[in-house]
Amino acid sequence: MCQLLGMNAHTPTDVMFSFTGLATRADEHKDGFGIAFFEDRGVRLFVDHHSARQSPVAELVKGYPIKSRNVIAHIRKATQGHVALENTHPFMRELWGRYWVFAHNGDLKGFDPVLHAAFRPVGGTDSERAFCWLMQELAKAHASVPTVEELTRTLRELLPVLARHGTFNGLLSNGQALWAHCSTHLHWLQRRPPFGAARLADEDLSVDFAALTGPEDRVALVATQPLTHGEPWTAFAPGELRVFVDGDPWPVGR
Amino acid sequence: MCQLLGMNAHTPTDVMFSFTGLATRADEHKDGFGIAFFEDRGVRLFVDHHSARQSPVAELVKGYPIKSRNVIAHIRKATQGHVALENTHPFMRELWGRYWVFAHNGDLKGFDPVLHAAFRPVGGTDSERAFCWLMQELAKAHASVPTVEELTRTLRELLPVLARHGTFNGLLSNGQALWAHCSTHLHWLQRRPPFGAARLADEDLSVDFAALTGPEDRVALVATQPLTHGEPWTAFAPGELRVFVDGDPWPVGR
Repeated sequence: MCQLLGMNAHTPTDVMFSFTGLATRADEHKDGFGIAFFEDRGVRLFVDHHSARQSPVAELVKGYPIKSRNVIAHIRKATQGHVALENTHPFMRELWGRYWVFAHNGDLKGFDPVLHAAFRPVGGTDSERAFCWLMQELAKAHASVPTVEELTRTLRELLPVLARHGTFNGLLSNGQALWAHCSTHLHWLQRRPPFGAARLADEDLSVDFAALTGPEDRVALVATQPLTHGEPWTAFAPGELRVFVDGDPWPVGR
Repeated sequence: MCQLLGMNAHTPTDVMFSFTGLATRADEHKDGFGIAFFEDRGVRLFVDHHSARQSPVAELVKGYPIKSRNVIAHIRKATQGHVALENTHPFMRELWGRYWVFAHNGDLKGFDPVLHAAFRPVGGTDSERAFCWLMQELAKAHASVPTVEELTRTLRELLPVLARHGTFNGLLSNGQALWAHCSTHLHWLQRRPPFGAARLADEDLSVDFAALTGPEDRVALVATQPLTHGEPWTAFAPGELRVFVDGDPWPVGR
């Protein structure tokens, strides 16, 4: 199974600790990895079709404290589409003058929509096909970039259409919010003051977040499986869509 | 002035030597750099709004022998648009199920076309606006991905429209060919057997290509200024468009 990681934060935050936790799981997911960092409207997208354990690009990401408010990462176990750079998540497109980044875990069977608009897959995965269809349908539904509320309402209609074709655990961001849809496996966690310490579930590495964060910091993380011990990860329900803005579940307090 | 570097090769070739030559010039171009490597249909795009002299991403690129048949790199000196990741070249879009990568050196005055189609700028540069317009016009001119010959014919009509607005030294690739248009400064070079040695123009580093290449290798390079001593760089004429396919000027023999 592929591994997903999403981060949405109130202030620019580095994701090195969590990415290290994700990359540790790369032994059995050796068909590539990718990570996208939003910095304001811009995106840094690092992809490699080598294992995140071996890739020099993964080493860079683990050692370079890129600070971002929205991150999506993916470690791939190929199911559809051969192992190639063009099949490596996350995928990126531009819509309404904003970049959109998408990563998917799961298999969609018989999903072969008519793609008549401006979004066509470059590679051969069901995931990129699903992303192109999502972008096409969003473009049809709104004339220009809508509010997070409007986008969420549209996504609540569109994502179940994808999920009917199989397993659809997916992360989507436009740099303003992180949308996370669960079919089978997805967990989330918010780190906020008072910060404690956490230990990576799979590696002998721990971090004391209190030493690294300020009183305003709030960070929401979404991952296929809990990445740490000692923190209250919550499982998504099947079919659940969650939205995170400024490091908070959205709408706040829901 | 920004610095451009393009490479088009017959066999996947690493560009580390030439990129090192380019990055050396980054002292006066400290407003970001970017480099895109095609690998088949996929693209690795590394961008940073730090100087190529200081950026850990540039260090990775100089040390990691990514082999590619089409590369476009850019070192930025901001003229329009503030220094930010979304204003860092090269820019990338998808059209007809292929990624397109573009970098520009120069200034376009009063170029404010109607962008009614699916390509909108994310940042604030004249360069990204020009790229979006190019993609829009290509999409209008062809229903699906055309041949290099057809694309070249369309670009010969479109690029002079941009060049009328100011300085347009630009590089464009879709992974099949490299298009290079010169307004003021652009030079090109082909390396082919028998290979000799070259010394970087700005740095005490030389390479004996004979030791690194095979008899089939052919590599075309395009750069703002000649990157090496001891090689026959040729200046573009103002207004000239050149196309490179499989490491050869195209059409072959022209």
